[in-house]
Amino acid sequence: MGADSDTVTIGSLTLQGFAADLLRAGGFTADQAQQTAAMLVWANLRGADSHGVLRIPRYVEMVQLGLINPSAEPRQVSGKGAVAVLDADRAPGAVAMNLAARTAMQLSDVHGIGWCAVRSISHAGAIGYYVQQAAQAGRVGIAMTASKPLMIYHGSSAEGVSTNPIAIAAPTTNPDRPLVLDMSTASVALGKIMAARDGGQTIPAGWGVDADGRETTDPRKVKAVLPMSGPKGSGLSLMIEVLASVLTGNPLIAVALAGGGDPGGNGLVAVLDPSAFGEDFPIEVDRLGAAIKGLPPAAGSERVYLPGERGFEEMERRSRAGIPLVQGTRSRLLALASKLKVAVPEGLT
Amino acid sequence: MGADSDTVTIGSLTLQGFAADLLRAGGFTADQAQQTAAMLVWANLRGADSHGVLRIPRYVEMVQLGLINPSAEPRQVSGKGAVAVLDADRAPGAVAMNLAARTAMQLSDVHGIGWCAVRSISHAGAIGYYVQQAAQAGRVGIAMTASKPLMIYHGSSAEGVSTNPIAIAAPTTNPDRPLVLDMSTASVALGKIMAARDGGQTIPAGWGVDADGRETTDPRKVKAVLPMSGPKGSGLSLMIEVLASVLTGNPLIAVALAGGGDPGGNGLVAVLDPSAFGEDFPIEVDRLGAAIKGLPPAAGSERVYLPGERGFEEMERRSRAGIPLVQGTRSRLLALASKLKVAVPEGLT
Repeated sequence: MGADSDTVTIGSLTLQGFAADLLRAGGFTADQAQQTAAMLVWANLRGADSHGVLRIPRYVEMVQLGLINPSAEPRQVSGKGAVAVLDADRAPGAVAMNLAARTAMQLSDVHGIGWCAVRSISHAGAIGYYVQQAAQAGRVGIAMTASKPLMIYHGSSAEGVSTNPIAIAAPTTNPDRPLVLDMSTASVALGKIMAARDGGQTIPAGWGVDADGRETTDPRKVKAVLPMSGPKGSGLSLMIEVLASVLTGNPLIAVALAGGGDPGGNGLVAVLDPSAFGEDFPIEVDRLGAAIKGLPPAAGSERVYLPGERGFEEMERRSRAGIPLVQGTRSRLLALASKLKVAVPEGLT
Repeated sequence: MGADSDTVTIGSLTLQGFAADLLRAGGFTADQAQQTAAMLVWANLRGADSHGVLRIPRYVEMVQLGLINPSAEPRQVSGKGAVAVLDADRAPGAVAMNLAARTAMQLSDVHGIGWCAVRSISHAGAIGYYVQQAAQAGRVGIAMTASKPLMIYHGSSAEGVSTNPIAIAAPTTNPDRPLVLDMSTASVALGKIMAARDGGQTIPAGWGVDADGRETTDPRKVKAVLPMSGPKGSGLSLMIEVLASVLTGNPLIAVALAGGGDPGGNGLVAVLDPSAFGEDFPIEVDRLGAAIKGLPPAAGSERVYLPGERGFEEMERRSRAGIPLVQGTRSRLLALASKLKVAVPEGLT
């Protein structure tokens, strides 16, 4: 007996259908529910459960709170040439970011590059999802998203910037295995600090600070997460705020630090068309990947991994074997299903 | 007596003239020497002495070795719409990157964004220099450069990627104070490890590895530098190689790891025109900067700094008081001047 005995495993398509049903019953339109469920289950398939279906109860709550607007009609508010700026009117994050990715892709058809920024989105989820679409179409994708202060700004004792992530993807000759870098600008995922707390371990210096803004190695005392490599992480996060928020006329950090309410989020997707660069690109990306994988593993490591590779391997495993849902996630989804009168798939009850 | 007594201080314009004379005598054309000297002295002015005039003897050596080509005639080799790809034919790095910045700026006039990649450059120097030019013209600049393996790839014991830097700059309402993020993807500058070695101190885990590829806290044992935040730094560096090198048909990492010779370098500059985004951008960047500077300083810190701010303050100090040249740098420059029969400015002898 143990945690495993409380974990059920469910097929990804079944889970995606259930997720879409829950979102639909929670106020999303059918199309919004479908797009959002696909993004969430993609994260679960890749092992990024923190960005998977466990988010659904909060998304439904956000509809009730007016933080997600199912009636949103995203529209272009400005742009020029290869640049488009959209206002998502607080549409679900996956819907807004999918639209930005499609728009950037179309712009890159004409201009070699497309840059689509989208303001007033809600939670974007795992942003690797949006750049991977570009890579699977043979393009290079770059995505960034911005949200409210969640992380210490280097040199300050306060949360002054978000953990703003950046993702970059490039195609290889295998459409199922692009390179997909997807990283936050924080030193570490909050989940790792929580795991050390639960396990009674100390954490390395540089992960978090206590209530006085001092670095601590005691995970029970962590009040805020520190940026990746000090000024690099908080500086990069700040410049993502400039690119995704300030440029699009929806500043989040300045408003939040001045005491404003929840400012939502912003995102951007840039797409490059390798044919504009004139090279046999995916073959050369293969060569690069092979060279990296040929490096000697570090002591204690068995293999060298490419960006995104662990996720793709987990995706193959979970596509076959199903997605494990821990007790806490499952019970919260079942409670939501009961409340919204949504049918629960067999195997999940 | 001490290090200070061996340091002379020289006015920036005098130093820039001397630097240009040395480069000219070392084989650069007058224009190449002028562009390169301006970039090097900019780095000195900002306190980044490791990227300043101390590079000149190596640059002259690189001309002799054929690694810098003073006869280079950079030309466009491909492109489409907002994208241009140049081949710099091993022109001096500052010349190639200035050209890329100008080209990206012109493209952004027409398309809202310009993306100019330039292959076969030589050492680019402090890449904040190129994006700062965009910011001073009211644009947003993004630059990246790629070079040969210099840093451990996360999960490997070997140097598999470079310390590829990224720089992002945005204008404020003060043309002399844009935001300028300029960071490498390494955990720490090699100079900090050398300083700990000279000072007999230990270094934190995560900075470097020994000859066996194991992390060490003994700076005397460091054989290679580790990436910023493990997989984040090496993953970002790898994707910069994809964007700057693989896309432009001049792969560096795959070639170097296969035992090829010195592959030179590649770079890119992207420029965004805020007017395409339709917002009163510099004023909003000011607001963001003011909000960040209003955060409470960390314990032990007196102030919170914006990206690039320390460099601008140093620049103001050194513009007035002159640039300090330590004994080692000065003697190497004087030796080069003697060898090349270049007149040495008063105050430097």
